[in-house]
Amino acid sequence: MNIAFLGLGGMGHPMARNLLKAGYDVSVWNRTQSVAETLVSEGASVLTAPSAAADCDIVISMLADDNATRDVLFSQNVLTTLKPGALVINMATISVSLIRELTEICPDRHLFFINAPVLGRVEVADAGNLNILASGDGQQIDRAQPLFDVMGQKTWRFGDKPENACAAKLATNFVLASAIEALGESCALVESHDINASDFIAMLTGTLFSAPAYKGYGAMVAEERYTPVGFKLTLGLKDMLLVQQAAEKKNVPMPFASVMRDNYLEAIAGGDGDLDWSALGNVTRKRSRLR
Amino acid sequence: MNIAFLGLGGMGHPMARNLLKAGYDVSVWNRTQSVAETLVSEGASVLTAPSAAADCDIVISMLADDNATRDVLFSQNVLTTLKPGALVINMATISVSLIRELTEICPDRHLFFINAPVLGRVEVADAGNLNILASGDGQQIDRAQPLFDVMGQKTWRFGDKPENACAAKLATNFVLASAIEALGESCALVESHDINASDFIAMLTGTLFSAPAYKGYGAMVAEERYTPVGFKLTLGLKDMLLVQQAAEKKNVPMPFASVMRDNYLEAIAGGDGDLDWSALGNVTRKRSRLR
Amino acid sequence: MNIAFLGLGGMGHPMARNLLKAGYDVSVWNRTQSVAETLVSEGASVLTAPSAAADCDIVISMLADDNATRDVLFSQNVLTTLKPGALVINMATISVSLIRELTEICPDRHLFFINAPVLGRVEVADAGNLNILASGDGQQIDRAQPLFDVMGQKTWRFGDKPENACAAKLATNFVLASAIEALGESCALVESHDINASDFIAMLTGTLFSAPAYKGYGAMVAEERYTPVGFKLTLGLKDMLLVQQAAEKKNVPMPFASVMRDNYLEAIAGGDGDLDWSALGNVTRKRSRLR
Amino acid sequence: MNIAFLGLGGMGHPMARNLLKAGYDVSVWNRTQSVAETLVSEGASVLTAPSAAADCDIVISMLADDNATRDVLFSQNVLTTLKPGALVINMATISVSLIRELTEICPDRHLFFINAPVLGRVEVADAGNLNILASGDGQQIDRAQPLFDVMGQKTWRFGDKPENACAAKLATNFVLASAIEALGESCALVESHDINASDFIAMLTGTLFSAPAYKGYGAMVAEERYTPVGFKLTLGLKDMLLVQQAAEKKNVPMPFASVMRDNYLEAIAGGDGDLDWSALGNVTRKRSRLR
Repeated sequence: MNIAFLGLGGMGHPMARNLLKAGYDVSVWNRTQSVAETLVSEGASVLTAPSAAADCDIVISMLADDNATRDVLFSQNVLTTLKPGALVINMATISVSLIRELTEICPDRHLFFINAPVLGRVEVADAGNLNILASGDGQQIDRAQPLFDVMGQKTWRFGDKPENACAAKLATNFVLASAIEALGESCALVESHDINASDFIAMLTGTLFSAPAYKGYGAMVAEERYTPVGFKLTLGLKDMLLVQQAAEKKNVPMPFASVMRDNYLEAIAGGDGDLDWSALGNVTRKRSRLR
Repeated sequence: MNIAFLGLGGMGHPMARNLLKAGYDVSVWNRTQSVAETLVSEGASVLTAPSAAADCDIVISMLADDNATRDVLFSQNVLTTLKPGALVINMATISVSLIRELTEICPDRHLFFINAPVLGRVEVADAGNLNILASGDGQQIDRAQPLFDVMGQKTWRFGDKPENACAAKLATNFVLASAIEALGESCALVESHDINASDFIAMLTGTLFSAPAYKGYGAMVAEERYTPVGFKLTLGLKDMLLVQQAAEKKNVPMPFASVMRDNYLEAIAGGDGDLDWSALGNVTRKRSRLR
Repeated sequence: MNIAFLGLGGMGHPMARNLLKAGYDVSVWNRTQSVAETLVSEGASVLTAPSAAADCDIVISMLADDNATRDVLFSQNVLTTLKPGALVINMATISVSLIRELTEICPDRHLFFINAPVLGRVEVADAGNLNILASGDGQQIDRAQPLFDVMGQKTWRFGDKPENACAAKLATNFVLASAIEALGESCALVESHDINASDFIAMLTGTLFSAPAYKGYGAMVAEERYTPVGFKLTLGLKDMLLVQQAAEKKNVPMPFASVMRDNYLEAIAGGDGDLDWSALGNVTRKRSRLR
Repeated sequence: MNIAFLGLGGMGHPMARNLLKAGYDVSVWNRTQSVAETLVSEGASVLTAPSAAADCDIVISMLADDNATRDVLFSQNVLTTLKPGALVINMATISVSLIRELTEICPDRHLFFINAPVLGRVEVADAGNLNILASGDGQQIDRAQPLFDVMGQKTWRFGDKPENACAAKLATNFVLASAIEALGESCALVESHDINASDFIAMLTGTLFSAPAYKGYGAMVAEERYTPVGFKLTLGLKDMLLVQQAAEKKNVPMPFASVMRDNYLEAIAGGDGDLDWSALGNVTRKRSRLR
């Protein structure tokens, strides 16, 4: 079984490397080819173009966004050149609409398609400890499971439709962003009453909120430590827009998502777009002139 | 040292009983006197009126809201009859304004005042495992600490001003309510994409959100299990209004609090006021006609 | 018939003067007595205290807010000293709660009470062109009608309950503030696309929005002309809080009111509290760094 | 000079007919050809396909939305077949993005492009009384002005960039929708206080809000008269999404637009998508169970 891995960004690079380390035959492609070449010493072959993946059994797509995915899979002829029976796996967070298109097009070309976006930041990908949210045909998920077991600590299955895992991933990022926003507003409230934000967060995470999301982001928001960047704020906005699109298609009003969309825009207007997305936690402080 | 405990509601009753069990000399008062009498067999003496607390060293006030606290402490003459040097401890969640009034008035009457609202539902109070958020003069908190150690598992100190603990408590309830609202909106989103809400919550609480707040309320929201009632929805609105008041005094805009205020009002208008406050988690589902 | 006029602020002063000009016997009272004395040359007698209104047939209360009204009518003994059959008219914008209290208390003291808040800024009051929103017992409104006809151009009646006119007035200010906020957001949108805001407003007010509210506030927002102050921004917040209180009592969620409450708080935090309330129109521009 | 008019919906049909009445040589095309044929008796020639417009001097595009415009102008080869020097005029409300694409592409093909969306409902189009918001090269607007004078009562120019008129049009619809939402919330507030909504609206439109927008929509909201449909609620959502897109590109947070987006989604979920867009005015009433 040979695998093509398309997209070697912050997340894709360690994921591909873990597959190589586990002994898989992996060909890699990246827009900036020099990045692909860093994996040659680990046993990767470098594809000169996405369409060179034509003979692979499994293609993993881990590209930046809808535009990059559309460009590589459609315009650069991946889907038109793959052999019948090949499995295409999207592991990036892209829109429900594009997942639907891929779900429709792949069978026409005798390809299988499953969706498997991931939870975890770069260091988690590095350690092979991602959580993978998978949906699509069960047999094809079974086919990919050994690869998922190398890249992640657990695979959570969400049914037969590839778009399901997308909705689950977007909903997770929404819950995470909501936690950050709530931390930001509450830190502003306690600071305005002369309480040290770190003391407040220590209490929260020592009681009802003793979870990784609150421990990690709680400390970052309390200390206003928005670098190094785990997930860029502009990507936070991108995900919130994807949440809104997914919700709009089903007539689901999501007022928290609306608030966060507007707050991300304000943060970007204020020059914080390149900080970690948890810099959302400073918007309320700035509005109330605590900063 | 004798203690007067005023207010034996769902929380106050087990708190007072734990003090009795620990061997303290506790006099109790409750609006409905029959409730007070249930503690006689545990060693309590029953006060016929709040002002009968006049000879006590420490008065603990655990009353329903601002109006009840104001009525008992002011109108029913507790503050005017206590002997000099007595310590008044508020353990209820009341407004920053009322805490400020008490902070000003008590010294005029040679009384000490500290504020110590609690985190935890009835069963937690019962087990003596509350988390206590305390603020005010440090020596007076030391004086009360043995009592806090009986009623709670840990005391978190938030500085010299009694209103600080109030802000910290309100901020905590705000973060908790925000988690519930985020769960409600995200469950609506995933359900609209044919995902079972419980599967989604299992993934959340198995990964980034492995905390009591999400495990407890996540299951309730996923299963729409809003009885038995741990904390009534109308009290959720009350707390959100207190959050808004505390924020208004410091010019802190809190858009999530605004969203929740409006959603609580809608839930109450729709007849859900007597359910658990986590029924907030059904507002988005109803709006999008998933229910 | 002799009239006592309590409260000679920006609005009260010209209203009282118009009554004097029309030949009425008017006694006046103001917290700062020197203001009251400026009306002596127009024929007014000056009351040394609100309770000196005891012999008047009609008392008009035009005080700053709930606190001032409560202080003067209750604490300074107006209601306890008036003779039976006297008519108390509130013309200020105060809370539904306080109107209800007055509605209950006045009959106990054999006094009549109606509510008649006004629309219009100082120059409108000066010209006797206010619009008066009146509610309460119809016969008592008839009794006051000659006075209303002197102070205003038209009286709009809203039923038998004094609180009705309060709700109508608050709803009007809400619609007005909403127009200002919509102008602010739309000016930010067009300016971000390199359109001159005044050109945009000229088109709006030349087509669908050819009304005083849009002509006046449209120009102020387009030109960012927030002085001289017709109605202070902090009073805009006060009114929005009264709107929220009135809505809360009836379980009416008002998301626009929530947005504006938060935006007023931000404007005040940013130092704009003493500008005209239409400075609300700059909040979005600041957030998007167009200013 | 011969003109091609593409798109004969509710608005396009009377606009094309007015051009014919004024004596212009107009060829028409519509997806459903029978609609085009109704104009033959008025002197129109019917185009069998959009590309049959190849010899025209001016092409007016009045199509339903981005997709229809893209399909007709791009896929159905209008832009590739027009002769050099022809002028393409978009008069529909489409996205800023598509306007930008047209602005870039047309010069490459030696075509001119201006943008001229309109204000007014069907009966206004019928009477030739539209307000036209135009932007783009001034000489080309001059070239089109005689046609605009036939279709509209006034042309408002918004600068050299075609996208400007789009922003101005979207901002206008945003202000209009905000007025409807404010009317809806305020009617809920006054009705909850037992005031007849029509009495309240009469006062508003008799005082500060004596403008067509408030008179027309005020009566519709007060009386809940959402048929016949002037502008469908689903189109209201479409426009609000275009507003949000235009704002997002410039990092302008628009909280009122966010509220309305969510309220439109709720109205559609509740089955009101085919009513007039002013049915937005019933969302708050339903939430507060006044309906």
